[in-house]
Amino acid sequence: MLDPKAKKNVIATGLPASPGAAVGRAVFCAEDAEAWAAKGEKVILIRNETSPEDIGGMHASQGVITARGGMTSHAAVVARGMGTPCVSGSTDITIDLKAKTMATKCGVVIKEGDWVSLDGAKGQIIEGQIPTVQADTNSGNFGKLMGWVDQIRRLKVRANAETPQDAKQALAFGAQGIGLSRTEHMFFEPNRIADMRAMILADNEAGRREALARLLPYQKQDFKDLFKIMDGLPVTIRLLDPPLHEFLPHTDPEMQELADKLGKTLAEVKARTNALHELNPMLGHRGCRLPITYPEIAEMQTRAIIEAAIESEEAGVKVIPEIEVPLTGSKKELDIVKAIIDTTAEKVFAEKGKKVHYIVGTMIELPRAALMAEELAQSAAFFGFGTNDLTQTTLGMSRDDTGAILDEYRARGIYVADPFASIDVEGVGKLVRRACVEGRKVNPDIHLGVCGEHGGDPKSIEFFEECGLDYVSCSPFRVPVARLAAAQAAVKAKAKK
Amino acid sequence: MLDPKAKKNVIATGLPASPGAAVGRAVFCAEDAEAWAAKGEKVILIRNETSPEDIGGMHASQGVITARGGMTSHAAVVARGMGTPCVSGSTDITIDLKAKTMATKCGVVIKEGDWVSLDGAKGQIIEGQIPTVQADTNSGNFGKLMGWVDQIRRLKVRANAETPQDAKQALAFGAQGIGLSRTEHMFFEPNRIADMRAMILADNEAGRREALARLLPYQKQDFKDLFKIMDGLPVTIRLLDPPLHEFLPHTDPEMQELADKLGKTLAEVKARTNALHELNPMLGHRGCRLPITYPEIAEMQTRAIIEAAIESEEAGVKVIPEIEVPLTGSKKELDIVKAIIDTTAEKVFAEKGKKVHYIVGTMIELPRAALMAEELAQSAAFFGFGTNDLTQTTLGMSRDDTGAILDEYRARGIYVADPFASIDVEGVGKLVRRACVEGRKVNPDIHLGVCGEHGGDPKSIEFFEECGLDYVSCSPFRVPVARLAAAQAAVKAKAKK
Repeated sequence: MLDPKAKKNVIATGLPASPGAAVGRAVFCAEDAEAWAAKGEKVILIRNETSPEDIGGMHASQGVITARGGMTSHAAVVARGMGTPCVSGSTDITIDLKAKTMATKCGVVIKEGDWVSLDGAKGQIIEGQIPTVQADTNSGNFGKLMGWVDQIRRLKVRANAETPQDAKQALAFGAQGIGLSRTEHMFFEPNRIADMRAMILADNEAGRREALARLLPYQKQDFKDLFKIMDGLPVTIRLLDPPLHEFLPHTDPEMQELADKLGKTLAEVKARTNALHELNPMLGHRGCRLPITYPEIAEMQTRAIIEAAIESEEAGVKVIPEIEVPLTGSKKELDIVKAIIDTTAEKVFAEKGKKVHYIVGTMIELPRAALMAEELAQSAAFFGFGTNDLTQTTLGMSRDDTGAILDEYRARGIYVADPFASIDVEGVGKLVRRACVEGRKVNPDIHLGVCGEHGGDPKSIEFFEECGLDYVSCSPFRVPVARLAAAQAAVKAKAKK
Repeated sequence: MLDPKAKKNVIATGLPASPGAAVGRAVFCAEDAEAWAAKGEKVILIRNETSPEDIGGMHASQGVITARGGMTSHAAVVARGMGTPCVSGSTDITIDLKAKTMATKCGVVIKEGDWVSLDGAKGQIIEGQIPTVQADTNSGNFGKLMGWVDQIRRLKVRANAETPQDAKQALAFGAQGIGLSRTEHMFFEPNRIADMRAMILADNEAGRREALARLLPYQKQDFKDLFKIMDGLPVTIRLLDPPLHEFLPHTDPEMQELADKLGKTLAEVKARTNALHELNPMLGHRGCRLPITYPEIAEMQTRAIIEAAIESEEAGVKVIPEIEVPLTGSKKELDIVKAIIDTTAEKVFAEKGKKVHYIVGTMIELPRAALMAEELAQSAAFFGFGTNDLTQTTLGMSRDDTGAILDEYRARGIYVADPFASIDVEGVGKLVRRACVEGRKVNPDIHLGVCGEHGGDPKSIEFFEECGLDYVSCSPFRVPVARLAAAQAAVKAKAKK
């Protein structure tokens, strides 16, 4: 935390997107963040918004500031996952990427290299280099409290994690498994993105399979790492979710480099990029629509999961893999993808002469999925409520575009809380409740969990307790809060009875 | 229609987005379409997709072809509204906008100026100049059939119309009023777009009000025209719906021109455009979120409606104005906008010393609106189901981005019909039915209508009859089909009882 005794000139405020204090020198692109950090500089990454390509730069930064985006924007979600302090959606600042400056409403201009500090819990951006002090959150009393909490709560608490680092952090904070592992984050690492792009730009299935075969060993190692860390605990792995264009480069030099690498022309790369372009990517060719069009992607991912599970068991690790299909809206979609998964798993079992137990479930993140829960529950062993996307579609609000509107809506009393931070019980909640009730009627053994950002929010956890969910899953750093909130919700639920 | 006896080389197929035959010379941008048409050339406009800025060019064209977009893409909806034949979402073609060529999968390349024909009812693109013949659809037998049909049907049929031309066409086809007048289409005309842009780029409310005051007389005349044509019939006017960035220019020269006109710098125009940019505009700052942020826009539109209504009544026209608030998700939003409307109307009544009757209702086009129908019905005199947007949000499918996926989904049996053409009864239908039932419980007098593209689709009309809607509203050219379908639905409903 920033030293409470230090003098601070707050030059702008934004959303408290990821708690903690950060102090560093201003940089305005992910590449600069990585380059400066490599030279030993502490940096704060300042962007209008972030995209998956900025992850390296975010990792290299002490903190992140964005001008746009809400509590569940890319910057906010990723920063929380990393434990990196972040102030998002600050409408007080204007960023000039060419000049590399950030101008604030109060007239201060921060140039590249200037020192800047931020308080991610308060959503404050502060001029200069403020001293920090260690916050005391992990003392003996904390452990004692958590012991009491765990005796009382009914809801299990898992974590959203992809990297070994996150998974270890989650475990240290008491997570009872991984409730969401977003496999797409695994493909942005420098040694993989090239193969991913080769897969996307391949002219045919054979070309895609070639590139996927190169990705398989990496992906398998990802899962072996997670299984080992989570030994004896469930690991929910979601199949590739974002639209493929998110993996492609955007600038001419990068596209030219990619074209050269793949033996294509710049025009060919641009034509494919153009063909993949979407006006509303949130509502586009993503989720289970990808394996339906390109089954080979789900085949590779399933093979990686099953081979990793078998090899991990052979090494004495207890694996509980749960394969999750994203963005389904109908039983037929789930059945098609489940058939790809089951067929691939059987093939691997035959090759290895060994079986492992796995289950297949689905995200409930579209209104239609909640409305068709009685159908989906016939094929799904579990429902993972993706309440971020479910909120976006139910409210018709893109989390990246509505930061300013939500501020106004809260000021006007239209929403009491940010519906991306605390679940909208009246609207989205009706769909969640319906899916729980109808899903359980058809399939009494179905496991129900939530893996949106709401999984770490105490008010939402109270609602999830009422719905009778089995677990919540949240960013590793929110696990202790979720454990406490789950206990409080259990106490309240008992009092009501 | 194309002469059935003529030889045809079908070089590509797409969606049958707007019926009728068109023959003309290929052009690849709206500006060329207008320029060529001005010289007396018949042209076919070929685009990857169209945007509101292309409307002039679409008007100037015999037909429209797009490579992307579904049955409810901009191109498809606007072309049907204009009665212009259109083939949309043809994945068989690749358009090179720079070279001004369209290459088809079968190897034919159409260059600018080449003759091309299209059959909008079959979704076919044909090489060369195919002769056309007049289709016989308006003979005496047609009138006789429609007479029978109108005696049987319970559902009223209105039309979606903004221009006097459309409204007259709708009336000629037997529409019983206007069910949706999209006011945004009125702001793209050359003499208005400049003021619209000045409003959007104004630095403050005073600047916005100045620009809006210049738009008021145009907008008032729009409504006087519609009221006069629809004398004695209801006219539903929807407040401005799209995000403001849709009205801004995209190219540097256009932005420079705009900057010069407004006494701003190119950088200032770009900064504002950049600030308004949205990643998912479909889920962005639009609908009722606009008047909540900029009440002066709704004030101007209400003043235009009420002044037009008063002046029309003084001229002996019977006016039935219905003011519709788009994209609401909660009663509070509707109440805030309704207060703006009512306050403005009272002000105009006081100024003119005369009152007119009007009602205020809301679109139901977000899942949350359907889930909160019991609340919304307390404030709304009518519900207009916007099933295009309701389908997009419920299914999580952007109508502009999912043409290719939907083809695959239908081939795989995931959807039997295109959910944008025929309503998804199991999913979206559950929400519509819920809103009808819960809305009527609270407000038994509430009027219920549908104004999405489904309003002209026979299968959907059968479902709307079951729900007990009061009316359907569709493109003028689909009104006769809707009348017939409404009668068939009434017969089926009777048979079921």
